Amino acid sequence: MGEGVIIAVDLGGTQTRAARLDQQLRIVERDSRPTVTTSAQTVVDGVVASVRAVWPQDGTPVLGIGLGSPGPLDPFTGVILSPPNLPMRGFPLGDVLKEALGVPVTIGNDANAAALGEYVRGAGRGTRNMIYMTVSTGVGGGFIVDGKLLAGARGLGGEPGILLMAVEPDDVRMFETLVSGPHITRMAREAIATGVESSLKNVADFNTKDVGEAARAGDTLALSVINRAATLLGVGIVNLLHLFDPERIVIGGGVTKLGSLLFDPMWAAIRQHVSTPAYLDGFQIVPAELGGDAGLIGAGILALADGGRGDVSAFVD
Amino acid sequence: MGEGVIIAVDLGGTQTRAARLDQQLRIVERDSRPTVTTSAQTVVDGVVASVRAVWPQDGTPVLGIGLGSPGPLDPFTGVILSPPNLPMRGFPLGDVLKEALGVPVTIGNDANAAALGEYVRGAGRGTRNMIYMTVSTGVGGGFIVDGKLLAGARGLGGEPGILLMAVEPDDVRMFETLVSGPHITRMAREAIATGVESSLKNVADFNTKDVGEAARAGDTLALSVINRAATLLGVGIVNLLHLFDPERIVIGGGVTKLGSLLFDPMWAAIRQHVSTPAYLDGFQIVPAELGGDAGLIGAGILALADGGRGDVSAFVD
Repeated sequence: MGEGVIIAVDLGGTQTRAARLDQQLRIVERDSRPTVTTSAQTVVDGVVASVRAVWPQDGTPVLGIGLGSPGPLDPFTGVILSPPNLPMRGFPLGDVLKEALGVPVTIGNDANAAALGEYVRGAGRGTRNMIYMTVSTGVGGGFIVDGKLLAGARGLGGEPGILLMAVEPDDVRMFETLVSGPHITRMAREAIATGVESSLKNVADFNTKDVGEAARAGDTLALSVINRAATLLGVGIVNLLHLFDPERIVIGGGVTKLGSLLFDPMWAAIRQHVSTPAYLDGFQIVPAELGGDAGLIGAGILALADGGRGDVSAFVD
Repeated sequence: MGEGVIIAVDLGGTQTRAARLDQQLRIVERDSRPTVTTSAQTVVDGVVASVRAVWPQDGTPVLGIGLGSPGPLDPFTGVILSPPNLPMRGFPLGDVLKEALGVPVTIGNDANAAALGEYVRGAGRGTRNMIYMTVSTGVGGGFIVDGKLLAGARGLGGEPGILLMAVEPDDVRMFETLVSGPHITRMAREAIATGVESSLKNVADFNTKDVGEAARAGDTLALSVINRAATLLGVGIVNLLHLFDPERIVIGGGVTKLGSLLFDPMWAAIRQHVSTPAYLDGFQIVPAELGGDAGLIGAGILALADGGRGDVSAFVD
């Protein structure tokens, strides 16, 4: 690859972030601005402005732009399909940005980009089979299988959050609705509404962090709802072990700030339900290391390595 | 690769089968005998005898032996870990057979071998991302991701049967217990025991096929238990779509003989629960084509292509 830089974009429902990266994927300059979700055009205008804010001023060529966006999207065509938080249903974002900016644009799922970032520069280094999961208001993820991002036939693979859990055919739930932050607080609210005692009664509009603090102080209800989510998170992780048998799962997202309140019952469920302890030989669950930079560094890889679907080992530190 | 043949073995809890294959993976000669499960040694003796029965009599060299066995097992070391139906816990089958037969022996999970067989010679041809599932007394499977068998870090990946389903932390079920043949008949028996009317009352010791016949004749209970299993099978398949986004799922195993009784409600559940119809663009679910030969042909690939973990495209017809 010739001289030049990469521009990475992390497009979210609330923030649009861009960064200029050198070819070693180091972040050289950043921009961040609110995403204006009035229309597809206002979103595009924000991306273009953010990219221009980090465009090299000295004439260094921009080799390509990589952009992570909420899915579902088609990484082969750059078309956004039906994102929950962006007014871009069926929108050809890749082509529109390429036209506006005059350089190749590669688009990928934001959680896949973060997975690539953690894999090459963060907590996934040194593995060949790694799963990245982010657990916050929802659950997202990305899967590295034998050194490559699992994309699937249409680029729609790697979605652990929408894993379905059901024992009865008429009671099918999405994994993320069972383990995410909003679920934890909703469970606590519902229990309080039925008269269950809890120190959370006195906290107006409490959030996951408040539930965590109450649990640390010994609140029985808070402990119980966190335990429940953590146990089901462990069950979901066992599913990923049985299917993917990774060396490591990297977990990011706000819910992980619950720390051992979350991780202890999660590990207990994993040990209880794994079909053979062989899956746990050398297996680790570690916190993500790069925070929001994972998505930017990963978006850079989207631009450099065939949408991240090629072997990205060459980028590993 | 030089001149010579491959010997493939399908080691099961009831039958041991061996076949001599040419380098185009065509089966030239077969042997089959009951598996004697008295001890690890009796199992080994049966495998050795079956291999010798198909050994070339004209001095043609045997390049290698590939063997599919019930898991869990370690395909990198050839050690059988804890198979439910074989007395071989922690048994170094690969080394023992290599010592006895004097040629390289590669061991893999039997369902992974069948997946490889269907991928290169059967119903999976023409795809790059394919899932093979067998639904009978249990559920087994194998996953082809971007042209390669998904093995995982320890070779333990690709086990859809032990996918856990849970909505409540204290009610965790294995996928295969919800959709397999024994589950269908057990559900019917339990309902009859509680007084539910059914023509199956008059069938002594009925099996899945009997339940299918009763359903075809309009028996409400039989229809209901098949519907339930088919719906949960559809839910499980949606999980595989969301995670792997395959072009095709190939289904084998006795339960598939239920035909549209199974496939119609299964497809209804898939359409109902898939997160976006984009997953269904060009997606197919097709019956397996090779029957028991899938496992033998796949075992041949184990011997030829780095335990089947290399790119096996070269073997595709």
